[in-house]
Amino acid sequence: MKVTETIAAISTAMSDSGIGIVRISGPDAFEIADRIYKGKKTLSSQPSHTVHYGWIKDGENTIDEVLVMLMRGPHSYTGEDTVEIDCHGGVFVVRKILETVLKNGARAAEPGEFTKRAFLNGRMDLSQAEAVIDVIHSKNEYALKNSVSQLKGSVQRKISAMREEILYHTAYIESALDDPEHISLDGYGDTLVEKVEELLKELKKLIDTADNGRMMQEGIRTVIVGKPNAGKSSLLNALVGEERAIVTEIEGTTRDILEEHIQLNGVSLNIMDTAGIRKTEDVVEKIGVDRAKNQAEDADLIIFVVDSSRNLDENDFEIMEMIQDKNVIVLLNKSDLETKVTKEMIQEHLDKPMIEISAKEEEGIYELEQTVKEMFFRGEIAFNDEVYITNVRQKEALEQAFTSLKQVKRSIEDGMPEDFYTIDLMDAYEALGSITGETIGEDLVNEIFSKFCMGK
Amino acid sequence: MKVTETIAAISTAMSDSGIGIVRISGPDAFEIADRIYKGKKTLSSQPSHTVHYGWIKDGENTIDEVLVMLMRGPHSYTGEDTVEIDCHGGVFVVRKILETVLKNGARAAEPGEFTKRAFLNGRMDLSQAEAVIDVIHSKNEYALKNSVSQLKGSVQRKISAMREEILYHTAYIESALDDPEHISLDGYGDTLVEKVEELLKELKKLIDTADNGRMMQEGIRTVIVGKPNAGKSSLLNALVGEERAIVTEIEGTTRDILEEHIQLNGVSLNIMDTAGIRKTEDVVEKIGVDRAKNQAEDADLIIFVVDSSRNLDENDFEIMEMIQDKNVIVLLNKSDLETKVTKEMIQEHLDKPMIEISAKEEEGIYELEQTVKEMFFRGEIAFNDEVYITNVRQKEALEQAFTSLKQVKRSIEDGMPEDFYTIDLMDAYEALGSITGETIGEDLVNEIFSKFCMGK
Repeated sequence: MKVTETIAAISTAMSDSGIGIVRISGPDAFEIADRIYKGKKTLSSQPSHTVHYGWIKDGENTIDEVLVMLMRGPHSYTGEDTVEIDCHGGVFVVRKILETVLKNGARAAEPGEFTKRAFLNGRMDLSQAEAVIDVIHSKNEYALKNSVSQLKGSVQRKISAMREEILYHTAYIESALDDPEHISLDGYGDTLVEKVEELLKELKKLIDTADNGRMMQEGIRTVIVGKPNAGKSSLLNALVGEERAIVTEIEGTTRDILEEHIQLNGVSLNIMDTAGIRKTEDVVEKIGVDRAKNQAEDADLIIFVVDSSRNLDENDFEIMEMIQDKNVIVLLNKSDLETKVTKEMIQEHLDKPMIEISAKEEEGIYELEQTVKEMFFRGEIAFNDEVYITNVRQKEALEQAFTSLKQVKRSIEDGMPEDFYTIDLMDAYEALGSITGETIGEDLVNEIFSKFCMGK
Repeated sequence: MKVTETIAAISTAMSDSGIGIVRISGPDAFEIADRIYKGKKTLSSQPSHTVHYGWIKDGENTIDEVLVMLMRGPHSYTGEDTVEIDCHGGVFVVRKILETVLKNGARAAEPGEFTKRAFLNGRMDLSQAEAVIDVIHSKNEYALKNSVSQLKGSVQRKISAMREEILYHTAYIESALDDPEHISLDGYGDTLVEKVEELLKELKKLIDTADNGRMMQEGIRTVIVGKPNAGKSSLLNALVGEERAIVTEIEGTTRDILEEHIQLNGVSLNIMDTAGIRKTEDVVEKIGVDRAKNQAEDADLIIFVVDSSRNLDENDFEIMEMIQDKNVIVLLNKSDLETKVTKEMIQEHLDKPMIEISAKEEEGIYELEQTVKEMFFRGEIAFNDEVYITNVRQKEALEQAFTSLKQVKRSIEDGMPEDFYTIDLMDAYEALGSITGETIGEDLVNEIFSKFCMGK
């Protein structure tokens, strides 16, 4: 894919602010900049990685006062000659500058096209390119750490190491098949099985991180359940820090599902307040109760709020039945009132972490945070040695590689001829290559980058 | 005002995008950058106006991959040592970088504080500083051109020239009063009157541009009036290019005032669709009609829509009465139907520009655009020689200077002693100085910059 066009886009967000950036990349970037920039010097004669003060003009018409940053390929983000125009961050003026750049020979970049060029020019592999957009969309500490670690190549290194192993063994088998007189495959099955088992273990571990990875990146899908008036909405309000949900003493106040994103100590929760679960004749409330049950079904985490000032009733028992197999934290709410429900009484029916809280007095919230963290990320996450997969595409490729290697193992165990191994080994090799982008078609590349934001 | 603190802020808009910028300015900018930047080189040993690739770290924790731009004072926006960190444009990651910068010794900048420092360090005068925010908020071609011309110093030069004149004459009079033996004031009143009249004329001209300046910057307050079902909402929809207002054949469909911002050939209109004006018993509609009348009262421009397919009635006559003294464009709508109202019939009651249009067929819109432009900006605006005042504060200062110079003229005509002149001359001098910021207190400076956006 030969790149000859010079592209340009606005790389900052489209809302009035101090500074806006128009980025130009491609063979004519400097020439185009020269046409519209008026300053002390001609930009194209200046060294790379320098900054120049001046004005952007469209013919006689002065558009803005700017700083222009020059980076010559291959030492730029895209690997091509790149010019960044730092202008005033008004939406109109930034658009005007982009317009002028386009008028002078650049083409409007597609979303993600700068990063796509970086990938095509070998500045980063595909897993790093995907990490770029993950960094931008990171909403919490862990998501950012993990994305930056992928940006630094953590996934790429892991995958490349596995691919090297696979390639080595495939090559060995093929050499032996070509030259059986000099290279023996006797007992090689045992060596290979051992190696494949190692790889399978490693793959399994990576695949298993994907759920945590998703939760890290997108937040833990958390549903608050409990019978009416247990204090679910008060809890949501306490967590959000504002009066998000309407709280009354009337049972059945909440019917719609309210969703909020909150940050607990660097972890994001997408937290949903639901209708109190009970048998009801009210049609709207009934719909609310059904929705609450459905949400609980799909949740990563259920926060079960028990009103400890009232005796457990059939509604509580129904809920406990429903959530037996889920990740649950039980909150004994209304710890500020006289309690009729003890931890032991719950324990008989549901064996899950329990915390006494008072949503009203905002007590016990810190313990809840700690428990969530403990439950999902075993306290702290060490990003230096652990790689979390956050990307669905990557997860699928890993699963594909896993299946192929399983097949290799089976073939060995079944005593199949050696050339059978190599086919599946190469399938695994290909699948892993799609993660780093070494074995991937143009269509898929285009699809991946089309999900990027404009100007990146 | 001695600046010793190093400040930092996010200078790009707060929404996920390709690139975000954290700006640091002040004596410790380089030192702080060194503490958190890991790259090939130590930033503080690098030359000014260079760009460096690397990573931002908070201790062991890598936050993002960045480009860092270095500018040493006084050759920077603020006139101080300045570092700009170009990072990934995610809201979380940009905030995280700012946090790290603050943790390492910078203080969070107040809104406009970078520009305030630029002003205090003599990098620009106050009229240029105010133009910075006008450039950012420019919503159309003319507003941008005018703001950029002010940024280039058009107001500053004009004001400085006037101040010089005033100072010269004040000094001359004072010298003469100190040394009457050698310097004569005989006939000086005549010279001074002539000069003062010139200055008054110039001031008047500048003050008169303020209305146009405001309309340029903020848009022309335009109100669409007409009797019910004349096609006002259809016109709004045609101008906006979407179905903004609900259009039916039922009279009194529109009650609330709908406001839209549209661009006509580089001019912005803040255009309001109002309830059809008629005598009505419907309470809600009556409120709508009253509001329409009030809006028409305050408008820069009234677009009076006449239904040319129906005979003029008392409602039309009432409206024509009401808008006699305003800037009005009459639209003879429904030119696609058989017409019962001619231009001449309107002319008898209202002498204003008239255009036949069909809002439904979107005919006549171009002529409307031209007429608006003609009416407010006499076709094209030549920004090279004309300065438009867009700032209320500046307008008030000009009016103050105008009043003082008027007083000088009166004193001369009344034959008052010469030292009377100098007091008022100096008042005018001071008033003009507040525009460029030479004679302005710290409080006012703070107030002006507090209206800036964060990070500028």
